[in-house]
Amino acid sequence: MPNVVSMEAGYYRVPLEVTLSDSTHGDMLAFELNTVRLRDADGAEGVGYTFTVGRNGAAIDAILTRDIPEQMVGQDADRIELLWQRVWWGQHYGGRGGPTVLAQSALDMALWDLKARRLGQPLWKLLGGYDPRVPCYAGGIDLDFPLDKLLRQTDDNLRKGFRAIKMKVGRKRLAEDVERVRAMREHLGEGFPLMVDANMKWSADEAIRAARAFQPYAPAWLEEPVIPDDVAGQVRVVREGGLPIAAGENLRTLWEFKQLIAAGGVTYPEPDVTNCGGVTPFMKIAHLAEAYNLPVTSHGAHDVTVHLLAAAPNRSYLEAHGFGLDRYIAEPLRIEEGFAVAPDRPGHGIEFDWKALQAIRA
Amino acid sequence: MPNVVSMEAGYYRVPLEVTLSDSTHGDMLAFELNTVRLRDADGAEGVGYTFTVGRNGAAIDAILTRDIPEQMVGQDADRIELLWQRVWWGQHYGGRGGPTVLAQSALDMALWDLKARRLGQPLWKLLGGYDPRVPCYAGGIDLDFPLDKLLRQTDDNLRKGFRAIKMKVGRKRLAEDVERVRAMREHLGEGFPLMVDANMKWSADEAIRAARAFQPYAPAWLEEPVIPDDVAGQVRVVREGGLPIAAGENLRTLWEFKQLIAAGGVTYPEPDVTNCGGVTPFMKIAHLAEAYNLPVTSHGAHDVTVHLLAAAPNRSYLEAHGFGLDRYIAEPLRIEEGFAVAPDRPGHGIEFDWKALQAIRA
Repeated sequence: MPNVVSMEAGYYRVPLEVTLSDSTHGDMLAFELNTVRLRDADGAEGVGYTFTVGRNGAAIDAILTRDIPEQMVGQDADRIELLWQRVWWGQHYGGRGGPTVLAQSALDMALWDLKARRLGQPLWKLLGGYDPRVPCYAGGIDLDFPLDKLLRQTDDNLRKGFRAIKMKVGRKRLAEDVERVRAMREHLGEGFPLMVDANMKWSADEAIRAARAFQPYAPAWLEEPVIPDDVAGQVRVVREGGLPIAAGENLRTLWEFKQLIAAGGVTYPEPDVTNCGGVTPFMKIAHLAEAYNLPVTSHGAHDVTVHLLAAAPNRSYLEAHGFGLDRYIAEPLRIEEGFAVAPDRPGHGIEFDWKALQAIRA
Repeated sequence: MPNVVSMEAGYYRVPLEVTLSDSTHGDMLAFELNTVRLRDADGAEGVGYTFTVGRNGAAIDAILTRDIPEQMVGQDADRIELLWQRVWWGQHYGGRGGPTVLAQSALDMALWDLKARRLGQPLWKLLGGYDPRVPCYAGGIDLDFPLDKLLRQTDDNLRKGFRAIKMKVGRKRLAEDVERVRAMREHLGEGFPLMVDANMKWSADEAIRAARAFQPYAPAWLEEPVIPDDVAGQVRVVREGGLPIAAGENLRTLWEFKQLIAAGGVTYPEPDVTNCGGVTPFMKIAHLAEAYNLPVTSHGAHDVTVHLLAAAPNRSYLEAHGFGLDRYIAEPLRIEEGFAVAPDRPGHGIEFDWKALQAIRA
């Protein structure tokens, strides 16, 4: 019987090897990791996780520990759509966003992992089975790197097998950004997919100005030019900036994606399975993008997300960005000549090293 | 010096005298109350609170205990706009909604209380000083009450001095709703302000059908006909239903209100100071409504909200709905012939009975 008999939450602080920074989130010293382990009556297990860049993890843990278990234990784990609705509406008044959605994302991922493991299928096949090889790019958090360090990081990424790279923009003066983008384009050569990411730094007008200044260096996309709440502004950036726009890591629901997509405010929708509500809404967002003839990209959690993009015919690049989690995973994501490969193990195939995680409990 | 020297959070479970239910949230047995107490270097105190209908309170407590204090202690308490931005962006990745916004709402309320107390002014004067007498209505959570109990509750409300009343709709069959609205209209007489609240129960088409069916009984407004995420649907309800529409208790930011208002999806914007981000965004939402020539109403926390509406020239009805909190407050809100009166005590004037609250710590 696939009824849930236990739900266990974990809360960890993952130290970063180097302090990261972008134009909005300031210095990041450690990421928080929240995990969910579900077991069913047959002893099968499903694992999910979410993460933050340093705050709200204790809140996610509180929701996973105090609020959600009573809604899950005893329920039929195969009715994922029903459980998603139950948890969404059961939490809605104090939830509908923020830590509640991150908690639900981890839960939903665990349910899908459990189902796929029970059925003996890798998640990418269960969800659609398009192509296990997914083009992928290296996502760097390098806004404050001096130029030579940025180029060294780029060479490292090329050695690791990446054939597409994203850099941060949003420095104090636009001229600095332009110079860095120019240097990266020169370093990588014409045609190499280079993305730029502003992390919500600009107003719509500033973003349009920046997009036009970057045009000669042909970035594959400009990411998060404005805050996620400024839909009308981002529509202008798409229309007037002359670059494809990626956005979505700070949207938290299918409906927020629908608003942005239907308004014409995004070229590459970019959900994050750990914060858009889980696998269930991620796939709906991917299919919504398909209906609008848009490619779908991703943010975060590359080891699980590779399955989701491998299931979707409109998948574009997977973001590879592990924030130090690889040290706690048995078989980290493989990158081969620019492609990430969805593993053929049942479920998502991520095995956490629970003993090692004990040492970094928050 | 107005620098914050301490921040203390409280987390309580407030039992309800009767189990409440509406069309979406199911049975509510207890509300959760989260409090914030700030002290500055001169020993002045500011108090804020938020609440939930039963879940996410532990998450709010975690944020107020673990994440926010380091961002507040030592800061100039008078620079509320700066602190609001600091907390919003400091929490943004795992926040931007849900428990994080509720926590920030309580914090922001405490900052405004502190400032007004230091200046020796009641909050309603500090924020604008329009009119301390605010028309108000009794908000009942009575969807499952038999008709006779609904009418008895109504008579109780009339005796308490209310001159406007809201009832729930969204029963299984629309005909039941229509019959109850008809009976309430007959009981209250023509011209008496009667509001109806669907708590997000319907699709846009169902809501339009219901609005048209209620038209003969002239409700003052129809509240939350659809989910807060369906902006396009609610625009249709406004245009095709033929009733004024109130909504906003489930919107969590100034930007969400802007989206709905600018789209023409609401007649009475209805922010809740305990979940829209606090006093700071509440007043911006009220002024945004004024710019669109719309009246502003409210949800929850009537004892503090009376100040906010008393400060705004476009204020319409205050919702009076105390969810059992009055027992823990020194001087609960006064209702006189249909008006709530903003007190002239400095700050918001709410004194919690901290000893009595100890007994219901969560």
